[in-house]
Amino acid sequence: MNKYMLEAINEAKINEDNNFKDGGPFGAAIVKDGKVIATSRNTVIESKDPTAHAEINVIRTAAQILETHDLSGCTLYTTCYPCPMCLSAIIWANIKEVYYGNTKKDAENIGFRDNKIYELLNNLDNNDIIKFTQIDREETIKSFEKFKNNQNLY
Amino acid sequence: MNKYMLEAINEAKINEDNNFKDGGPFGAAIVKDGKVIATSRNTVIESKDPTAHAEINVIRTAAQILETHDLSGCTLYTTCYPCPMCLSAIIWANIKEVYYGNTKKDAENIGFRDNKIYELLNNLDNNDIIKFTQIDREETIKSFEKFKNNQNLY
Repeated sequence: MNKYMLEAINEAKINEDNNFKDGGPFGAAIVKDGKVIATSRNTVIESKDPTAHAEINVIRTAAQILETHDLSGCTLYTTCYPCPMCLSAIIWANIKEVYYGNTKKDAENIGFRDNKIYELLNNLDNNDIIKFTQIDREETIKSFEKFKNNQNLY
Repeated sequence: MNKYMLEAINEAKINEDNNFKDGGPFGAAIVKDGKVIATSRNTVIESKDPTAHAEINVIRTAAQILETHDLSGCTLYTTCYPCPMCLSAIIWANIKEVYYGNTKKDAENIGFRDNKIYELLNNLDNNDIIKFTQIDREETIKSFEKFKNNQNLY
């Protein structure tokens, strides 16, 4: 077995061993230059945080350890193909290489909505999950205009 | 102007007023039963956390305040249409109503990759951003099988 994936699996096993009272059966590890930077697991229930998936947790932890929001050069190992939230976080973090074990279909088979969310993202204008309403753009656009005029800051 | 959107705009203005040194021009608020539960803003730079978008931050804060990962019955106000990470987080949090100001296109116009990520999510098998490799499923599936046998826990 891949030694980095083993780190991710060991995190999932922590949840398994306590009967999933902290969160679902998911673990992840972030590796840079052959070194494990951080490992984490799903803690949605224990943390009372719907965003506390294994990948989000491990990205947040690795970013704290490396003291940057930019995880360029890091590789992510995850026991399951990332949900759209985590996949997008991976992109925002500039991680470009992902090793995964279980598939989206595997996640669906044990009751998780990953596939349903992927479907919604392919059909945003006609979905039965979220009602979107646009308001007050003439006010919200002002900060965007200020930002555009300060692009040199980034 | 909508009074809840004003709360979100005021958060974006905090970043605007400090020349975006903490993060981009985004703010959000979560409301339940007419009461503002939490407000937040993008703090990616200041928090050294690539997941610290306004919506993720406000969901995490509201979940801590309400002491549950389940934000059913809450409404989200955000100064910009959510990126795919935040939109997925909204679904995981069971928020079903979203009011937004600026559009995805507006975000693209000031240099953010929201639209690019939406495109990737529509074409996962053929993308030039992330390289996915499946490994060790025979090991990672074990925790899923344990979870399936414990479905009554959830």
